[in-house]
Amino acid sequence: MAEFNFNDHPHRRFNPLLGEWMLVSPQRSKRPWQGQQEEPDRAERPAYDPTCYLCPGNVRANGEHNPQYTGTFVFDNDFAALQADVPAGDLNVEGLLQAKAESGVGRVICFSPRHDLTLPEMSVEAIRGVVDVWVEQFQELGAQPDINYVQIFENKGFMMGCSNPHPHGQIWAQRHVPGDPAKETVQQEAYYKEQGKTLLADYLALELRTKERVVVENDHFVVLVPFWAAWPYETLVLPRRVVQDITQLSDEERTAFADIIRRLTIRYDNLFQTSFPYSAGLHQRPTDGQEHESWHLHMHFYPPLLRSATVRKFMVGYELLAEAQRDITAEYAAQRLRELPEVHYKAGL
Amino acid sequence: MAEFNFNDHPHRRFNPLLGEWMLVSPQRSKRPWQGQQEEPDRAERPAYDPTCYLCPGNVRANGEHNPQYTGTFVFDNDFAALQADVPAGDLNVEGLLQAKAESGVGRVICFSPRHDLTLPEMSVEAIRGVVDVWVEQFQELGAQPDINYVQIFENKGFMMGCSNPHPHGQIWAQRHVPGDPAKETVQQEAYYKEQGKTLLADYLALELRTKERVVVENDHFVVLVPFWAAWPYETLVLPRRVVQDITQLSDEERTAFADIIRRLTIRYDNLFQTSFPYSAGLHQRPTDGQEHESWHLHMHFYPPLLRSATVRKFMVGYELLAEAQRDITAEYAAQRLRELPEVHYKAGL
Ligand SMILES: O=P(O)(O)O[C@H]1O[C@H](CO)[C@@H](O)[C@H](O)[C@H]1O
Ligand SMILES: O=P(O)(O)O[C@H]1O[C@H](CO)[C@@H](O)[C@H](O)[C@H]1O
Repeated sequence: MAEFNFNDHPHRRFNPLLGEWMLVSPQRSKRPWQGQQEEPDRAERPAYDPTCYLCPGNVRANGEHNPQYTGTFVFDNDFAALQADVPAGDLNVEGLLQAKAESGVGRVICFSPRHDLTLPEMSVEAIRGVVDVWVEQFQELGAQPDINYVQIFENKGFMMGCSNPHPHGQIWAQRHVPGDPAKETVQQEAYYKEQGKTLLADYLALELRTKERVVVENDHFVVLVPFWAAWPYETLVLPRRVVQDITQLSDEERTAFADIIRRLTIRYDNLFQTSFPYSAGLHQRPTDGQEHESWHLHMHFYPPLLRSATVRKFMVGYELLAEAQRDITAEYAAQRLRELPEVHYKAGL
Repeated sequence: MAEFNFNDHPHRRFNPLLGEWMLVSPQRSKRPWQGQQEEPDRAERPAYDPTCYLCPGNVRANGEHNPQYTGTFVFDNDFAALQADVPAGDLNVEGLLQAKAESGVGRVICFSPRHDLTLPEMSVEAIRGVVDVWVEQFQELGAQPDINYVQIFENKGFMMGCSNPHPHGQIWAQRHVPGDPAKETVQQEAYYKEQGKTLLADYLALELRTKERVVVENDHFVVLVPFWAAWPYETLVLPRRVVQDITQLSDEERTAFADIIRRLTIRYDNLFQTSFPYSAGLHQRPTDGQEHESWHLHMHFYPPLLRSATVRKFMVGYELLAEAQRDITAEYAAQRLRELPEVHYKAGL
């Protein structure tokens, strides 16, 4: 039998942030695809859309008018999944029916007044404006005594359940620390206790030795396809300096963060020459008043496209019942992304 | 402030099988939907499709001819994610890059020679044939010394990544116990140790007291929307008698299993008068030679549709980064499903 090799043989990889395994089947990337074809998003949009509830000056569902904003604009989600002022509630029937009231805040962040832009089409300065809003929001919401976790994220593209193409993200901030950040807290704490360094600082150092999975770097940030990536072109954005949350970034680091997001998302759009769908979000320390020195700020990008603008990876069946599975290796994905230009494909059109 | 109530206030519920929490936002079911519309599957299909690689007599990707099967038909997946004979491989770099070779088998099970049917359109006898194949396959694969877990599942509908409408399911059987079954093993063992009964037997007894979340029952099986359901119309199919795996079902129980699958999936199709997409699968004891008396066989249905044949729930953004979230309550979903007729809507067409 041939020797084991990561490019040809099925194997499982371990995600140390979540403490979970996933399955890699590199030999499977050759299978033909006869399933659902996605609509690639190549729509031409106007800079201002009178029917868009996120465009400046327009009316939202609750009757309010958006201001004539020129940079970013934040408002409370009119249909938030979380609400302030939820009465206390706690159920526990024999440990089998357990429920707890949850309170919190849902906000929407418009990234730009321009209806027709997305992050990769914005300037570093404009993205820096988004980073600044993230800092302000984390600071404001995290300071509230009944908010112990602040989830900042973006769903981009209809394929990712985004209901409006106007560039925007969301914040869901709440009393309890939700599942994934809670797991990451446990894993990072255990590592820190044992090693005296953050898990992600050591991981980053290790990746920078070979650069096999590194996609793009600047002075303050590195983007890599994590060894344990589940989504085909999943990436992890890491600050070189250990910080627990985004408020600790220096002025220069904030700009570097904007720069790296721009360069990564341009590569994403260039990969299949389409507005690349994804869910992305920051993971930061819980805002429960603890130090959390084991926490290392990072940003995940989970994009579904697999082979082209129309063929996606489905996390279904086996993945929903057993564990995450991927066909192309993390190393292959990193190489593909690394080789792409950093000039947006539309810039030449 | 009003008193806390599960139908109006956001709350988290605990999934005791996985040991994880999820978020319920019942107040959010009122939000308008402006996002992606799905294609409802209302295609009229021929009983035999000469271009289908699953129809009797046709040629598959590897050049083999399918037999002229009249009931079910099982073959090794031509593009399996798992392979036998994978050389041993083990990597561990500082606990941060961890990988292990994985071996196993991938099989496809055609449920019927008829290209145009799905489980809800088949007779109890025909579905019983599928149950019998599941039994045989579990027995055969589970007996192999290097297979410690057998995942039987079905992806139904293009929305769920199913690439061929010919009614079929899959089996992925492998050396390592994957994530979710491993978590369920831990949770069920802990419960059993403490209570001396299986977690799901106690849970079932509890649900049968109020029947609030029960959808349909027969002499040997109960279908309910679990208290902790994440997908809008997620259900859990439970045998009344505690068995660790499907081979332990009696002749009568196997037929009852077929009957309950039929009655459940007819309700699903009737809900939005469409061929209802889902991923579904059995969870059974690991086949590692241990007793696993704490294990309680069950089947999960994870269907994505939320409001209509065209509006689905997206597990994106917050869900991928934080934890599962739903809008309608489990109780509402159970009531909707319970009130539906058990005659397939197409039967009257
Ligand atoms: O094996 P299939 O039907 O080609 O593929 C489908 O089911 C698999 C198992 O759930 C998934 O990994 C694939 O993403 C999905 O498209
Ligand atoms: O809040 P939106 O954009 O209306 O909705 C979208 O993002 C949410 C948060 O990830 C998800 O719960 C929804 O399923 C998705 O459609």
